[in-house]
Amino acid sequence: MRSRRAGQAEGEPSPPTRYPRHGGAGDFERVVFFTDAVFAIAMTLLVVEIGVPERVAGDADDPAALLDALGDKAPLVLAFFIGCYVIGSYWVAHHRLMSWLVAVDRGFVALTVVYLSFVALLPFPTAVLGEFGQNPVSVVAFAVNMGAVSTMEAVLTSHARRRHLFREEWPADVYRWYLRGSLSPVLLFAASMPVAFVSPWLAIAIWFLAIPLGALLDRLRPAEAGRYLP
Amino acid sequence: MRSRRAGQAEGEPSPPTRYPRHGGAGDFERVVFFTDAVFAIAMTLLVVEIGVPERVAGDADDPAALLDALGDKAPLVLAFFIGCYVIGSYWVAHHRLMSWLVAVDRGFVALTVVYLSFVALLPFPTAVLGEFGQNPVSVVAFAVNMGAVSTMEAVLTSHARRRHLFREEWPADVYRWYLRGSLSPVLLFAASMPVAFVSPWLAIAIWFLAIPLGALLDRLRPAEAGRYLP
Amino acid sequence: MRSRRAGQAEGEPSPPTRYPRHGGAGDFERVVFFTDAVFAIAMTLLVVEIGVPERVAGDADDPAALLDALGDKAPLVLAFFIGCYVIGSYWVAHHRLMSWLVAVDRGFVALTVVYLSFVALLPFPTAVLGEFGQNPVSVVAFAVNMGAVSTMEAVLTSHARRRHLFREEWPADVYRWYLRGSLSPVLLFAASMPVAFVSPWLAIAIWFLAIPLGALLDRLRPAEAGRYLP
Amino acid sequence: MRSRRAGQAEGEPSPPTRYPRHGGAGDFERVVFFTDAVFAIAMTLLVVEIGVPERVAGDADDPAALLDALGDKAPLVLAFFIGCYVIGSYWVAHHRLMSWLVAVDRGFVALTVVYLSFVALLPFPTAVLGEFGQNPVSVVAFAVNMGAVSTMEAVLTSHARRRHLFREEWPADVYRWYLRGSLSPVLLFAASMPVAFVSPWLAIAIWFLAIPLGALLDRLRPAEAGRYLP
Repeated sequence: MRSRRAGQAEGEPSPPTRYPRHGGAGDFERVVFFTDAVFAIAMTLLVVEIGVPERVAGDADDPAALLDALGDKAPLVLAFFIGCYVIGSYWVAHHRLMSWLVAVDRGFVALTVVYLSFVALLPFPTAVLGEFGQNPVSVVAFAVNMGAVSTMEAVLTSHARRRHLFREEWPADVYRWYLRGSLSPVLLFAASMPVAFVSPWLAIAIWFLAIPLGALLDRLRPAEAGRYLP
Repeated sequence: MRSRRAGQAEGEPSPPTRYPRHGGAGDFERVVFFTDAVFAIAMTLLVVEIGVPERVAGDADDPAALLDALGDKAPLVLAFFIGCYVIGSYWVAHHRLMSWLVAVDRGFVALTVVYLSFVALLPFPTAVLGEFGQNPVSVVAFAVNMGAVSTMEAVLTSHARRRHLFREEWPADVYRWYLRGSLSPVLLFAASMPVAFVSPWLAIAIWFLAIPLGALLDRLRPAEAGRYLP
Repeated sequence: MRSRRAGQAEGEPSPPTRYPRHGGAGDFERVVFFTDAVFAIAMTLLVVEIGVPERVAGDADDPAALLDALGDKAPLVLAFFIGCYVIGSYWVAHHRLMSWLVAVDRGFVALTVVYLSFVALLPFPTAVLGEFGQNPVSVVAFAVNMGAVSTMEAVLTSHARRRHLFREEWPADVYRWYLRGSLSPVLLFAASMPVAFVSPWLAIAIWFLAIPLGALLDRLRPAEAGRYLP
Repeated sequence: MRSRRAGQAEGEPSPPTRYPRHGGAGDFERVVFFTDAVFAIAMTLLVVEIGVPERVAGDADDPAALLDALGDKAPLVLAFFIGCYVIGSYWVAHHRLMSWLVAVDRGFVALTVVYLSFVALLPFPTAVLGEFGQNPVSVVAFAVNMGAVSTMEAVLTSHARRRHLFREEWPADVYRWYLRGSLSPVLLFAASMPVAFVSPWLAIAIWFLAIPLGALLDRLRPAEAGRYLP
């Protein structure tokens, strides 16, 4: 306490302790962290929309009555899981994108805020889907929101390439291949919209074609892609 | 743009500052962080389900009336604490598992998303338990959700072993012993379900047998386990 | 206990494993992290206020009825996006401020709690704006809250300068220029309040003048500012 | 891709990329992080309890009517700020405690989960206080919850001392002095409870005596305390 450092005034009862900066909280890391936090919160908030059956038809202690009331919640629980896996998949995709970057710039940060606003919105169409699963409009709303997230993902990638934020410059064919993978779900979401008016469940099934489509695109990946996209 | 460091263009009013990546935000760390965030949010969201008594029977300033209204919330507060300790215990268990890994792979990340979807769901059966504690169905719903989390924990462990993600290869008996510890709560949850139809509180008491059972299994731990599971 | 490493006692069934501290979780970093978490949660919580249309006028499966019900939510969704971008912008500004510091002291931490209380409050006026967008009072409430956040930002900067927390001492003109940039939005918010009584939407438009105003102030930035505010 | 590392199978379309562990996510750090996240969420969740006035008496666009409706929310907003500063103060206290530790053990982690359950509960009595501020029972409920958090803080400190988790062993008088500082708010909370039945606002004022009391205790701090509690 004797050898005071800058900023410490004498005679104060509790001297102003300074907590110096370490290496751990860089600006790149804050962007990653903020993104992860928004994803984690959006995913966990989905549960709030399920809600609790406040009263059951009949006796509150009657198993059949509560089972019935919980059964009414089944579409909301299903929507919860769809929402979790959609948000989880976007998080994994963002995770991969960030692992290829050496830096971010201010434009990337600003675009990330736009991207995250669409991620943070996802619990809204998820809850609408849970409440009105048979209504094509709720399927369309969900698809539009997912399309916006996928599009912003492609915008972030393209910004990163233009500003030379990748570890190595990507060759044009690697970049085209990657962008196709990012945007192909958007096509599926668009295709699912008219289908929703025929059968909402069929439209939702189309979204899950993203998984075999992704595997198919993986087969078409350029030979040198492994070097740039480990 | 080639000769200038850090992507700064001349003549722009605010040059695009670049924030370079440091060592702190690796991909392994993001998985750990994302998991911790989901656990922390799920635990803290439990409080939302308690709710505030919006009106009391009688005068809003009458202590007896508010005490009465808060008394009605007692089962919800009890369910809140049960939920906190269950989520806290799962977090501690995940904490231990991750401390033994040297790496994660994409499969582990995908399984983690599934695992976290069950963790994020926990506030739902917790709230149902608080609202319908005397109803065996709410006890069963909670036990099913906990069983799913415990099972996914065992799936993560088994995936980590198959993909050689542990610091050292575990001998078969250490692995078997660990898996037994992971899955024994599932047996307790299953056993508690029929009991719930006799007495919901007895069923909840059975869950807490996990603590002495864990201590018992600790006594059976193979001599060399300490090396692999510090 | 002295001769045994890591506090492990003999004969105990599960020895008390110790998890030693690494460099990563310094006190400076915790302040940054806590701030980021509050921003991320405030931004993501905005979606809760949108809510789900619980029933639609007419058949739940009728596209027109649901489209109508969702249309009623449009002002809330617009308010959600305004809230996201406002919170996102404050986060970016805080991000920049912290990147210039070498340390924080206790006073800075205490002021950060006050600053964050106004950030955490933002979802409230955002929801009021969504619900009562045509009412000048909701515009004023939002402007007052934003003004409080901007003011606290300037208070944090001034505290950091007084306590010598910046990497380098800022010259007076750099400091004055920066403070002007921090406080100019407060003037815009104040100016928007009487305008809100003429036209709420015009008042909101005035807030967005912060962007060209920021660009203008960037042109006035002192030559040596780049050294202190990279 | 040619020289495969462990866990990579041949012939798969997308090889299982491994993300190795870095130094950043140690177990000590996860405990700190989890705690910070719970604090940040509890603080930010307070805003949810304010709620939006769903309808106003009269025209939705009438400034006087909305001002009136927002005026009804004033006690909830006041409770929000009280809650923010209480949670913020506890976070700062925990921050200080952790900065003195070199390690945590399993018992410390388990006690932290109990401690956090009381922190996570705080939004509940905060909302009750906002809704029933004139009712002494709501003041008592808030004081009981704060007392539980302060007590757990002392329990954590005492556990840390018993298990030798501090950087240096604290002398008995330093420890006694610190514990007195931790527990003196509990006395204030206890003293405020009977006062609440005379005047709820006087009882809340007593809580804020913690600030001058803390300053007074700082004057009594043993000479060598600065070495152990920087």
